[in-house]
Amino acid sequence: MDRVAIIGASMTRFGDRDGWIRELLAEAGEACLADADVSPDAVEHLYVSNMASGEFEGQTGVPNALAHDLAAMPAYTARIDQTSSSGGAGTYAAWQSVASGASDMTLLVGGEKMTHRSTAEATDVIASLTHPVEYKHGITLPSFAGLTARLYLDSYDAPRESLGKVAVKNHRNGVDNPHAQFRKEVDLETVLESPVVADPLRLYDFCPITDGSAALLFCPESVAREYTDDYAVVSGIGGATDTHVVHERADPTTMRGVVESSEIAYEMADRDPDDVDVAELHDMFTILEFLQSEDLGFFEKGEGWKAVEAGVTDRDGELPINTSGGLKSKGHPLGASGVAQMYEVYKQVLGEAGPRQVEADVGLACNVGGFGNCVTTTILEAGR
Amino acid sequence: MDRVAIIGASMTRFGDRDGWIRELLAEAGEACLADADVSPDAVEHLYVSNMASGEFEGQTGVPNALAHDLAAMPAYTARIDQTSSSGGAGTYAAWQSVASGASDMTLLVGGEKMTHRSTAEATDVIASLTHPVEYKHGITLPSFAGLTARLYLDSYDAPRESLGKVAVKNHRNGVDNPHAQFRKEVDLETVLESPVVADPLRLYDFCPITDGSAALLFCPESVAREYTDDYAVVSGIGGATDTHVVHERADPTTMRGVVESSEIAYEMADRDPDDVDVAELHDMFTILEFLQSEDLGFFEKGEGWKAVEAGVTDRDGELPINTSGGLKSKGHPLGASGVAQMYEVYKQVLGEAGPRQVEADVGLACNVGGFGNCVTTTILEAGR
Repeated sequence: MDRVAIIGASMTRFGDRDGWIRELLAEAGEACLADADVSPDAVEHLYVSNMASGEFEGQTGVPNALAHDLAAMPAYTARIDQTSSSGGAGTYAAWQSVASGASDMTLLVGGEKMTHRSTAEATDVIASLTHPVEYKHGITLPSFAGLTARLYLDSYDAPRESLGKVAVKNHRNGVDNPHAQFRKEVDLETVLESPVVADPLRLYDFCPITDGSAALLFCPESVAREYTDDYAVVSGIGGATDTHVVHERADPTTMRGVVESSEIAYEMADRDPDDVDVAELHDMFTILEFLQSEDLGFFEKGEGWKAVEAGVTDRDGELPINTSGGLKSKGHPLGASGVAQMYEVYKQVLGEAGPRQVEADVGLACNVGGFGNCVTTTILEAGR
Repeated sequence: MDRVAIIGASMTRFGDRDGWIRELLAEAGEACLADADVSPDAVEHLYVSNMASGEFEGQTGVPNALAHDLAAMPAYTARIDQTSSSGGAGTYAAWQSVASGASDMTLLVGGEKMTHRSTAEATDVIASLTHPVEYKHGITLPSFAGLTARLYLDSYDAPRESLGKVAVKNHRNGVDNPHAQFRKEVDLETVLESPVVADPLRLYDFCPITDGSAALLFCPESVAREYTDDYAVVSGIGGATDTHVVHERADPTTMRGVVESSEIAYEMADRDPDDVDVAELHDMFTILEFLQSEDLGFFEKGEGWKAVEAGVTDRDGELPINTSGGLKSKGHPLGASGVAQMYEVYKQVLGEAGPRQVEADVGLACNVGGFGNCVTTTILEAGR
């Protein structure tokens, strides 16, 4: 079977943006088509990764509006929502549309517009994904992250500083990303002395509220070759859920959705964790980068923090993680984040990441919804 | 390639239901697995067709909750939204998941919980799919339906009564559907004298606000044969958009999305409109049944009303349309409707439609979002 290729990618500047979701999506969609030099007429399917345009802006039916604005009608459109991993789910939907033969040219655009709402309002929208009873008892995403971080530090003798070093590393990487919301280094002292949010986690352990969008263009490899020599292929992709009832989790420091989804992706790609050269992980909270780096098989359980301490995941380390700056510095516009992870991996495996470039033939993106409630893992490799 | 089969189907009672979306979805999901005698362990992908659980109930992440409630974890889950055609889009997503090889067992559950909100509030949520500027100028879905109905009646010399006969027919069919919201016949006089909503359309030209859910179970045909002799195959499926800016439509009496999506479906199935024995059309407004029956190629442009007048689309007619009672009598829980259309067609092609049964080898479902903004057309045939 023809493999599924990606022949174009784009992302907008992430941060505090004017306009509304429709404009943000069109900006990324147009840039992606331009990047691939593909006419909107050629688009057969158009997927929009977006969690909550209805809740944030009172506007639904956004995929239709985007098909209109991109002059891509009558392309089939749908919105794919998997809360904060909507971008990964959109990637899977786009992959399926091509792999099934339904579409020979699928544009995926992920985006979210959030900053026009107060942080409290935006947090309320995000929290609507949690279990309603647990939520009333105080199990919000940040509070559960705090509990898990405490458990992790205690279980694996990890110092509090190791979490801070995730933030320091990702901010350092973000300086070289022109799309990132925060392009400034932070020192460990600043992170460790920032206000407490959910002990032991502090403000700098959390990603910000962000507006932004990103896009990818998918087609069969045979079609890709008609357009370009520089394309990537999705060699593996898988998705899985874990219980959203977090008190039912046997071990909160293991993200079963990450384990299960990556096993599917590795098997499909015929790859091992050791083969991965660069990875974008879902560092919505610093602790999540540790957990994912272990559950993806990069490091032994309880050893992820040591890798960060030793610089293994630095840009010049053995396995660079979040060369883009991660959600931490790049920002986290829910529906865009998983697509933007893929943007970074795409640029890395094609050697087009500029000052962020590392040596990479095989890249991986792991996009997480909720606290690992739903996860998509994708492996990307250069096509030629 | 293995064809994509459907081996189970269910729908709940539609109407004014207690509970919340999560319970409604679980009810249909469990019934569907029981119908197919498939264990939840076997489910690999789980899609939820739902437009607006966040807006209606303040709850998102519903697919995760459903995977939990059905004991289907770690099945991959995502929500598919295409406004009122979310069920058709979910059908397409489920089909793609199997046809791409990503999943050998995909459960699709569509549902919406709406009646706990006032009709005005529910209508506001639905209206969020319209163009925001047009909406401010009074172009709501009902008002545009009224304008289009007037244009249709004038253009094709159709009597007002013909629209009313759609409502009469679909109510008559709904009497034999135990799942329908309204199981009562209405006479033409009642329809024609009901309160004006958007001239010439009156109350009985519109579908109601409804709670409900429906489910389908998809797998490769080779897998289907391991479970049952009685299965259906999706022989054709296609989707398309039309502009949501309705003042840009060259001819509002033609639904381009219906034309384009059905062309894809017919070609894939190697079928013509003449081959279709039974069809479920999206009669959110009575006028839409005329338009779709023409744009699907069943009747010449401007002749759909004559077919209704002549009884061609009655249950005992040449081409029965909406044997289920349609959205008109069955109700229209947004995310469920497209799945429930498929439920009816599935039952018909398998000969399991009980008192609603017609002679049918080939069935078609046409699910419409907005005023034809996005459309999915599916052709279903008995597998053996």
